[in-house]
Amino acid sequence: MTRALTVSIDAMGGDAGPGIVVAALLRTLQRHTSVQFLLHGDEAQLNPLLARHAKLKGRVTVRHTTGRVAMEDKPSHVLRRGRDTSMWHAIESLKQCEADVAVSAGNTGALMAVSMFGLGIVDGIARPAIATIWPTLKGQTIVLDVGANVVATDEQLVDFAVMGEAFAHVIFGLERPTVGILNVGSEEQKGNDAVKGAAQILRNSSLPLAFHGFVEGDDIAKGTVDVVVTDGFTGNVALKTAEGTARLVGTYLRQSLKRSLLSRIGAMVASGALRTLRRKLDPRASNGGIFLGLNGVVVKSHGGADAVGFASALDMAIDMARTDINARITADRRAMRAERVETVAP
Amino acid sequence: MTRALTVSIDAMGGDAGPGIVVAALLRTLQRHTSVQFLLHGDEAQLNPLLARHAKLKGRVTVRHTTGRVAMEDKPSHVLRRGRDTSMWHAIESLKQCEADVAVSAGNTGALMAVSMFGLGIVDGIARPAIATIWPTLKGQTIVLDVGANVVATDEQLVDFAVMGEAFAHVIFGLERPTVGILNVGSEEQKGNDAVKGAAQILRNSSLPLAFHGFVEGDDIAKGTVDVVVTDGFTGNVALKTAEGTARLVGTYLRQSLKRSLLSRIGAMVASGALRTLRRKLDPRASNGGIFLGLNGVVVKSHGGADAVGFASALDMAIDMARTDINARITADRRAMRAERVETVAP
Repeated sequence: MTRALTVSIDAMGGDAGPGIVVAALLRTLQRHTSVQFLLHGDEAQLNPLLARHAKLKGRVTVRHTTGRVAMEDKPSHVLRRGRDTSMWHAIESLKQCEADVAVSAGNTGALMAVSMFGLGIVDGIARPAIATIWPTLKGQTIVLDVGANVVATDEQLVDFAVMGEAFAHVIFGLERPTVGILNVGSEEQKGNDAVKGAAQILRNSSLPLAFHGFVEGDDIAKGTVDVVVTDGFTGNVALKTAEGTARLVGTYLRQSLKRSLLSRIGAMVASGALRTLRRKLDPRASNGGIFLGLNGVVVKSHGGADAVGFASALDMAIDMARTDINARITADRRAMRAERVETVAP
Repeated sequence: MTRALTVSIDAMGGDAGPGIVVAALLRTLQRHTSVQFLLHGDEAQLNPLLARHAKLKGRVTVRHTTGRVAMEDKPSHVLRRGRDTSMWHAIESLKQCEADVAVSAGNTGALMAVSMFGLGIVDGIARPAIATIWPTLKGQTIVLDVGANVVATDEQLVDFAVMGEAFAHVIFGLERPTVGILNVGSEEQKGNDAVKGAAQILRNSSLPLAFHGFVEGDDIAKGTVDVVVTDGFTGNVALKTAEGTARLVGTYLRQSLKRSLLSRIGAMVASGALRTLRRKLDPRASNGGIFLGLNGVVVKSHGGADAVGFASALDMAIDMARTDINARITADRRAMRAERVETVAP
C-alpha cells in the first residue's frame, strides 16, 4: 500500500446527521494516528463542522455529493436512482481502491444492495451475511447472519460458518474457532432441513474450525461457541429480542432501585458498580454489523448511533481493514468443496 | 360439571422427580380450595410423599403407572411404546373426561405427540402451537409458537394468530387483543413468504383482533402488542435468547456489585430492591408453555422447574380449565374462512 490506510465514510447515513460522524472522527483519530478518512456528503454541512477542529486538518478529505439515501428507501429504488448519494459514493471509493473499508449508518437493505452491486461477492460464497459481535459470559461471540438473508439453504449456512470462522480468526486471533448452528434443540434429529443439512456437511469437513453441533438461543449469551451460525431472519429476531430484554431488565432495575429511600441510598452508594454495568450493556460499545462475503469490507453502524457508537464502528472497520479476511474465506471454502468432491468421487 | 374441576398431572415428568410435584400441590391447594388432582406415577414413590401432608387428603388421587418418558426419548418412540407411562396416562385421563386439564414437566416433543394422538386437533386448526407468557414493559405479552412447529405456512401463522387472540381473551380478558407478526422489519415488503402471506390474510379479516402488522424482536419486551405470532423455530430461539440475555445481565449486575467494598455496601442497602428485581425476572413465575389447538388443554411446565415453577404451571392450567378457549378458536377460524369464501365468490 503506498497510501495510508483509508476509511470511506457515508457521512449522511445515520438518523442524527453528519454531526455525530465528525464527533466520532475526533475520538477515532486519537486511537489511530496514521489513518485517513474520506467523507462523502454535503460540503455545506460538513465543511463548517470540520473547520472547528484543527486536529482534523490533513486527516480528512471531503467528497461532495448532493443525494442521500433515506431510511425508508427500498433497496431496488436506491440501485436504480441512488448514484448521486453519499452511500453510493462511499462504496464506490472502496471499489476504486481509494479506500480500504467503508462505513455507513444508513439504511441496511440499501447498503447491502449497493455493496453487492458495487463490490460483488467473494469467490466461493453464494450470498453475503451480516455478522455482529455479541457480549457473553465468557467474552464475545460472533453471530451471523443477523439480517442479510431472510432464508438460507444448508450450503448458505455452511458459507456463513466459513465466514464466521475467518472473522473469528482475524478479529479474535483464534486458530480453530468453535462453531455452532442455532437450532431449537441440541439433538441431531431436531430442526428444519437447512440446519440439519448444514450440520451434516460441517461434521464431515476438515475446515480449520471445531464444529460443536447445534446450539440453542441461551447458548449465545453463555458463550458456548465462538461463532453462532443462523439464517438472517432468526438471527435478526434473536439480536433484537436480546436488545429488548437487556433494556427491559435495565428498566426493572431502575424501577426497583427507585422504590424506597433505602434502595435509593443503596443505588447511590453502589453507583460506580451500576455505571460499570451500564457500560457492559452499552450497545454502542459493540456497535457495528460487519458485511462479510463481499469483495471489500463494509461496516454498518446502527442508524441511531451517537458519536460513541459510530466511533466503535470506525474502530471495527480499521481493525478489519488491516486483515485479509477474504483470502481466508475463499481458500477455506475452496478446500472444503474440493474435499467433498474427492469424497464423492469413486 | 358434576365432579369438581380436576387437574391431571404427570407426576414423573420433570428432572427433579415427584418431590417437587407434591411440594407444588401444597402451594396450589391453598389458592384453589375446590380443585381436585389426579396424579399419574409410581405409587411407591408418591404415596410416602403424600402421606406426610394431611392437607392433601381427599384432594389427591394417585393412579399407579410404572413407565416414565425420559427427556431424551424420541416422540415417535413414545407413541409406539409409551402407553404405560405417566405422561400417556395424564393425557388419557383428559381424553376420558376424568380431568379438565393436564400438566407435565416432561419431554416437550413427546408431550406434544402424545397430546395430538390422544386428544386430536381442534376443528379449523391445522397444527397446534405452544404459547408462552412474556413479561414486558407494559405487563405481559403472549408469544406463539415457541416450539411445536419448526416451519409454519402463512395459513398456520393465521391459525396461531386466532389461537393467540382467543388465549389473550380468556387469560387477560381482552375483547380485541392487538396482534403482531414477528419479522425482521415493520415495513410491508419485508420478510419471507409465510409472514407476508399471513399479514395479507389478517389485514383483510374482520376477526375480533386488532392486527398491528409486523413487529420486531425488541417489540416483544416493549409490549407493543398483546399477541406476537411466529413460527416455532424463531419463537423458540427468541425465547431462549431472552432467557440467556436476562441471565447474562443478572451475572453482570452481581459481578459489578461485588467489585468494591462500597458497591457491596450499596447492594446490601438496596437488597430489598434487588430482591424485587430478581422476583420480576424469575422465570418460575411465568413458568408454563400452553399447548393450544388441541381438544383439551395441556400445560407444559419447564423440565427443570422447582416447586414454585410447577405451582405456576398448575395455576395457569386451572385458569385455563375454567374457560372455553376452544369454542372461541373454532368459531373465529370458521367465521374467517367463511368471510374469505364470500369475498372470493363472484
